[in-house]
Amino acid sequence: MLRPSPLPAVLSPVITPFLANGEPDGGRLARQCAWLLANNVGLAIFGTNSEANSMSTRQKLALLESLVAQGLAVDQMMPGTGACAIDDAVVLTRAAVEAGAAGTLMLPPFYYKDLSDDGLFAYYSEVIDRVGSSRLQVYVYNIPQVTKVPLSLDLLARLVKAFPTTVVGMKDSSGDWSYTESVIRALAPHGFRVYAGSEVFLLRTLRAGGVGCISATANVNPAAISALARDWQSPLADNRQAELDQVRSMFQSLPMIAAMKAAVADTLKDSDWARVRPPLVPLNDAQLATLRESMAKTGFSMPGLAS
Amino acid sequence: MLRPSPLPAVLSPVITPFLANGEPDGGRLARQCAWLLANNVGLAIFGTNSEANSMSTRQKLALLESLVAQGLAVDQMMPGTGACAIDDAVVLTRAAVEAGAAGTLMLPPFYYKDLSDDGLFAYYSEVIDRVGSSRLQVYVYNIPQVTKVPLSLDLLARLVKAFPTTVVGMKDSSGDWSYTESVIRALAPHGFRVYAGSEVFLLRTLRAGGVGCISATANVNPAAISALARDWQSPLADNRQAELDQVRSMFQSLPMIAAMKAAVADTLKDSDWARVRPPLVPLNDAQLATLRESMAKTGFSMPGLAS
Repeated sequence: MLRPSPLPAVLSPVITPFLANGEPDGGRLARQCAWLLANNVGLAIFGTNSEANSMSTRQKLALLESLVAQGLAVDQMMPGTGACAIDDAVVLTRAAVEAGAAGTLMLPPFYYKDLSDDGLFAYYSEVIDRVGSSRLQVYVYNIPQVTKVPLSLDLLARLVKAFPTTVVGMKDSSGDWSYTESVIRALAPHGFRVYAGSEVFLLRTLRAGGVGCISATANVNPAAISALARDWQSPLADNRQAELDQVRSMFQSLPMIAAMKAAVADTLKDSDWARVRPPLVPLNDAQLATLRESMAKTGFSMPGLAS
Repeated sequence: MLRPSPLPAVLSPVITPFLANGEPDGGRLARQCAWLLANNVGLAIFGTNSEANSMSTRQKLALLESLVAQGLAVDQMMPGTGACAIDDAVVLTRAAVEAGAAGTLMLPPFYYKDLSDDGLFAYYSEVIDRVGSSRLQVYVYNIPQVTKVPLSLDLLARLVKAFPTTVVGMKDSSGDWSYTESVIRALAPHGFRVYAGSEVFLLRTLRAGGVGCISATANVNPAAISALARDWQSPLADNRQAELDQVRSMFQSLPMIAAMKAAVADTLKDSDWARVRPPLVPLNDAQLATLRESMAKTGFSMPGLAS
């Protein structure tokens, strides 16, 4: 039987601050995480927006250890632990389970393309078997526009059937609502927890029987997004959704990771926060001016965020 | 000034044997490498056909160490050291340089898509700066059909200009001859060494001023490919090229990595060699039958390969 999850309806793929030498900065990250938690947003650390694949396994292990040591609520964490190499995925997944994380978000291997369901099933199976823990709760991560490795509904159903108490949900960042809906229809009745990959789909996901969203913009707009997840049955919900969409479009019209980091850097008056790791680049001057103008015009702010 | 390179005109992205527990098998790999060297083919270990991205940095470091300890000619090696995370790329590149490898083949980071030249330049620059060795000889690896990150001629020219004695060549697996030719025309006059990513382009590459090829099929057909690279000015060269193309099409009509491993396994009567790591899958029975039939019909063999 599926266990109930302590994870909230909204999680943030937490943006990762970096030191000048390129190492992730556990101190700044822990403060950001604490602010998200205070706004009822869970911690999907090591996501796409966390630049997780720009960090080595060594760096991610150290960062997870640092967050745990700083006392952050591990049962609100869903670290990204998928990797191209099974050896890396096993090491990271095991560390997350041992730390007490409530779930792990697992990318498929994303180097080779045109993969078979058999090959993807073998990847997830081997990681799960080798971690070998009844506490492991895997959320499969579908983000085909980045990985170029789409995950079929057949594959998901096969994984759920093979690992009914371990493969417990997914994050779908495809942006293809008909796909998201088809997964919810097929698997949610069995307790499978579907998170949309953007709050743009939050209401539709909740109304269809999904559990929430894991969304980039939850890094900068956590209170409003988690409030809608709580009040989704309110008569004002559609208006609230429209407001969320406006904030998202402000960030999405720019390189999003760099823009969110710039917004945090501006709010905290801490330019170190604006760093991204190659191959990403920071906002250029024109983009930064656009962002500042939009933030000023819309009165956007991040209440309670402090360094 | 560019130094002359000890690397031969033909290299193989050496297929990697794996043990039943998923670890790479240094013993079998060293014997395969020795056979390739005996056929005048250099060792582009940790390539796409090596399933390098299905191995962790830990596994690759151990495997490199094992090959060096077994006495293989390090100056015939061009290990793949590119990675999504700069930390991994630096560790692997440094290990290759310290081992005495004649070059390193560097993928761009391949998780994010739609990257800017600035971001890719920053990635290569940071790896080169942090390795900080005058012995480092970088070959940039363009394989856009797999990475979905095409490398522009502008980017290559910018890297050569910034690191004239370090960024010394490339492997172009795009399969787009007009692109390959444009790189040779622009950069070969300055000593930039262009390898085609398939022996299908071997004669065209050599005639245009490139230096050779780094090709999957060199794993199974090394003698004939390296012979054509030696005798490319012979009047019979076009006939030899056509023969190479036939062998290649036999493997390319099947999942190529699995097919080459199956051919080695059959030749050595060593079924362990047929293993691939997920997300790849071994040939199915029908594919294996097709391969065996083609090998028998064409009289294809791997002379001198012994376990």
